Amino acid sequence: MSLLLLLFDLLGTFVFALSGGTLAVRYRLDVFGVLVLSCAAAVSGGLARDVLIGAQPPAALADWRYLAVAMLAGVVTFYRHQAIERMRNPVQVFDGAGLALFAVLGTSKALDYGLSPFAATLLGMLSGIGGGVARDVLVARIPVVLKAELYAVAALAGGGVVALADVFDLPRTPAMAVGALVCFGLRYMAIRHGWHLPAAHLPDDRG
Amino acid sequence: MSLLLLLFDLLGTFVFALSGGTLAVRYRLDVFGVLVLSCAAAVSGGLARDVLIGAQPPAALADWRYLAVAMLAGVVTFYRHQAIERMRNPVQVFDGAGLALFAVLGTSKALDYGLSPFAATLLGMLSGIGGGVARDVLVARIPVVLKAELYAVAALAGGGVVALADVFDLPRTPAMAVGALVCFGLRYMAIRHGWHLPAAHLPDDRG
Amino acid sequence: MSLLLLLFDLLGTFVFALSGGTLAVRYRLDVFGVLVLSCAAAVSGGLARDVLIGAQPPAALADWRYLAVAMLAGVVTFYRHQAIERMRNPVQVFDGAGLALFAVLGTSKALDYGLSPFAATLLGMLSGIGGGVARDVLVARIPVVLKAELYAVAALAGGGVVALADVFDLPRTPAMAVGALVCFGLRYMAIRHGWHLPAAHLPDDRG
Repeated sequence: MSLLLLLFDLLGTFVFALSGGTLAVRYRLDVFGVLVLSCAAAVSGGLARDVLIGAQPPAALADWRYLAVAMLAGVVTFYRHQAIERMRNPVQVFDGAGLALFAVLGTSKALDYGLSPFAATLLGMLSGIGGGVARDVLVARIPVVLKAELYAVAALAGGGVVALADVFDLPRTPAMAVGALVCFGLRYMAIRHGWHLPAAHLPDDRG
Repeated sequence: MSLLLLLFDLLGTFVFALSGGTLAVRYRLDVFGVLVLSCAAAVSGGLARDVLIGAQPPAALADWRYLAVAMLAGVVTFYRHQAIERMRNPVQVFDGAGLALFAVLGTSKALDYGLSPFAATLLGMLSGIGGGVARDVLVARIPVVLKAELYAVAALAGGGVVALADVFDLPRTPAMAVGALVCFGLRYMAIRHGWHLPAAHLPDDRG
Repeated sequence: MSLLLLLFDLLGTFVFALSGGTLAVRYRLDVFGVLVLSCAAAVSGGLARDVLIGAQPPAALADWRYLAVAMLAGVVTFYRHQAIERMRNPVQVFDGAGLALFAVLGTSKALDYGLSPFAATLLGMLSGIGGGVARDVLVARIPVVLKAELYAVAALAGGGVVALADVFDLPRTPAMAVGALVCFGLRYMAIRHGWHLPAAHLPDDRG
């Protein structure tokens, strides 16, 4: 992996970990709980992807830098959570960048392990949203990534670009760049304009 | 796998996915959340089984038809959830059929991967109930499969028939048919007659 | 594995399973739910570890004694939960012993599979706390192991001793004995003296 990609990957890990740490502080967990939620939010998506494609041990365990960065984010959150809460907007932007990167990297890795473009796109999405799902399940709330503005859809779109390029034998690297831009752009616009997917219509008198 | 078995497997997947989609609609998730819960309910049991026995990539990712069928069920639920809620009884019957099939197929696959009959029976049960567990954990409620009428017990019984036949070197296919009938019959009778397992006695003054 | 180690491992499994069964009784699950929570609490940590390091099928499925012991504990809990609740103190002590054993065994196994000392320590911790996490997620509550007195920290310390010994090429067996003592001692003192890690400071007017 190129140095630039690694830096982005670690930055995405850091920002995802911030989201886990912030949630842990809100739920009044102790410093260890903050570290666990930081790590869970940062690496669960990649762990699930790697276990499903048979890439064991997963990258997040084989390379110590991922968990070290996640723990660093946890420590920062523990001591500076109010500052981080105030920076909600920049954090959301970085989170969108992390999502974009995880989605295209996840899709690419799944393709390398021989999965079909369809399955690879789903695994890219899982790489992107798995951390958020694990983080929220651990505090017993419905994962916000299942409800947030086009969150997982943006990941699907980004990974889909990479998978489509693979179908048509186009070069991988520019496809990943385009996919990441598509994912990030979609998520950014959704945050800015409050874009939502529709929910099903329910009669008011439901039980 | 024979065509008939594949058709049943996809039908079971479809019905399990309906249960996930219906729950997502009740919890007012958006259309994407409905799709995720449909897929989670349909394939999580098989994913867990395949990861545990080392059959990677899991069948539900290697064959696109499973997730396609699960997503189709999600779309149907999104637009027709009231009709599906009204069909609760037929859906429960199909769900019992799906459970029976997943339990015997899961046990059979685990035996093929060299697991002991005891472990294979448990993995068959996991194939059958794992989707329901994942679906309910994602909306932060206690899995109903841990409480529903003889749900997991029926799966154990069905898988147990397949495992016992393996112990006594009896042919696999008829054992799977008998196991599926045992599981389905037990579940069907339990629904019809409200059969429950006992809960432990608790003093009324517990904290 | 030596007979003594196996006995300790099964004892730890039994005690972890008691904690799962007791919780299931409190949540009024039926006898099957009690068995599932007993098994989940006893083996989930080891299952997660083995899946992550690629040791499939996991030890808890390859050797029937683990799940048999866990189910036995479930049956005992179902019929004697009040007696077990009264023995809370001895159970906590055994639970600390189980934690210590799982942490050092888990770290050791991860090292054997070629993971780095850093990752192996974390996997040891996961072996120790994973069962408690799965148990609590299944009843939709925040895992107490993320909040209990130095619970996971003790596991980290115990596993860390084993990992450090590996770094310095010291013999494994005495390191595991020391690590287990460190973990157990830390947890025991934390229970006795109510030692807690700090939580982050939150302003009172938070939303």
